[in-house]
Amino acid sequence: MIFRQLFERESSTYTYLIGCEETREAIFIDAVKSELDNYLKLLTELDLKLICVLDTHTHADHITAAGALRTVTGALTLLGEQANSFCVSKALHDGDEIKVGHILINALHTPGHTSDSYSFILKEQNQTYAFTGDTLLIRGTGRTDFQNGSAAQQYRSLMQKLLTLPDDTWVYPAHDYKGWTRSTIGEEKMHNPRLQVADEGAYVSLMNSLKLPSPALMDIAVPANKACGNS
Amino acid sequence: MIFRQLFERESSTYTYLIGCEETREAIFIDAVKSELDNYLKLLTELDLKLICVLDTHTHADHITAAGALRTVTGALTLLGEQANSFCVSKALHDGDEIKVGHILINALHTPGHTSDSYSFILKEQNQTYAFTGDTLLIRGTGRTDFQNGSAAQQYRSLMQKLLTLPDDTWVYPAHDYKGWTRSTIGEEKMHNPRLQVADEGAYVSLMNSLKLPSPALMDIAVPANKACGNS
Repeated sequence: MIFRQLFERESSTYTYLIGCEETREAIFIDAVKSELDNYLKLLTELDLKLICVLDTHTHADHITAAGALRTVTGALTLLGEQANSFCVSKALHDGDEIKVGHILINALHTPGHTSDSYSFILKEQNQTYAFTGDTLLIRGTGRTDFQNGSAAQQYRSLMQKLLTLPDDTWVYPAHDYKGWTRSTIGEEKMHNPRLQVADEGAYVSLMNSLKLPSPALMDIAVPANKACGNS
Repeated sequence: MIFRQLFERESSTYTYLIGCEETREAIFIDAVKSELDNYLKLLTELDLKLICVLDTHTHADHITAAGALRTVTGALTLLGEQANSFCVSKALHDGDEIKVGHILINALHTPGHTSDSYSFILKEQNQTYAFTGDTLLIRGTGRTDFQNGSAAQQYRSLMQKLLTLPDDTWVYPAHDYKGWTRSTIGEEKMHNPRLQVADEGAYVSLMNSLKLPSPALMDIAVPANKACGNS
């Protein structure tokens, strides 16, 4: 498997490139529009054909490169059905499988940060990778106070879905703000301060007490991303 | 093997944590002093005992955490013999082997960016990792115009040492300024613009034509790093 983790500094976003060594097909997860030229160059250099661009959710902090990548490469764009996006090539449903050559990616609906939040799970050799979007961050979780967010739903997505993955699963989030690039499910279970609460009620109280400012780009990014980044 | 790549945003430095799953011994490569508290927390969370801090060279753009980590954890600090550092626990020589539990790391003298530049090579299962410091960057090479730098030496370090590693070797540099986290030797051979020159003379001309400004922190960082970051 070809795998690259790329960091967009302005929004501290991680973008993932996953490709099949044999068929040379590839996908991006959470591509950022301002990085378009770098992505196209990397695809050419690695001799990869982009077949799909996945977004873990409708982002509020950056504009997706999905639409622009589709225009240039012909790749499909995929986003959760709950986004009700008029422009994506295909809506994602819980349990969907995405094939990238010989690599199989499972879409797992993990609402809470937004109602359209998905995680993507793949297994390569003996290693499970979880691309957890803004649902599970390294030593944190995504805020739940806008875009149909729900702390109660997020708690269930975490406890009933992501944290049931094997402890040695690699956690690759959509963001990190302190320069950490990867964690594991086991590590997050033990050391993520948000996951040390007693129950769902305590988690909801914790998340509702955060009083975070709105993301600077939210009023621009959300409508732009509903239009696949092309508005 | 436990492996973490950490990014320090101000100097765009990558720090690497490598640990043995069985013995729980660990080392850092190119640790940054301002991140000390985060490193200590991570070591505790991952249940690792720091035995050694390696620096790929005497840095001019950030202050090493080596001395502070030694003070707190008792780890050894290692730096190339060419640095003539009065305070390191042990000077590195070309061909030295560093044992981290069951993991073996080879020190490769790769001068050119500075006279004391080393790369660190390890093999885990079937994957070779090359920690290339400022000698080989992703689609770039480190400047050669100060600290006994030499474009001719760097060309030989690249061509006769690093680029003779297997093409699928992972390249983990000391810095990246555009958010790329990893490359391979094969990719750099093909697509690194600095490595497409005809011969050593052309490389020297290219490097000598760069006319780069001095690093902002150089006058502070170099003397501080000669003192293990403790000055």
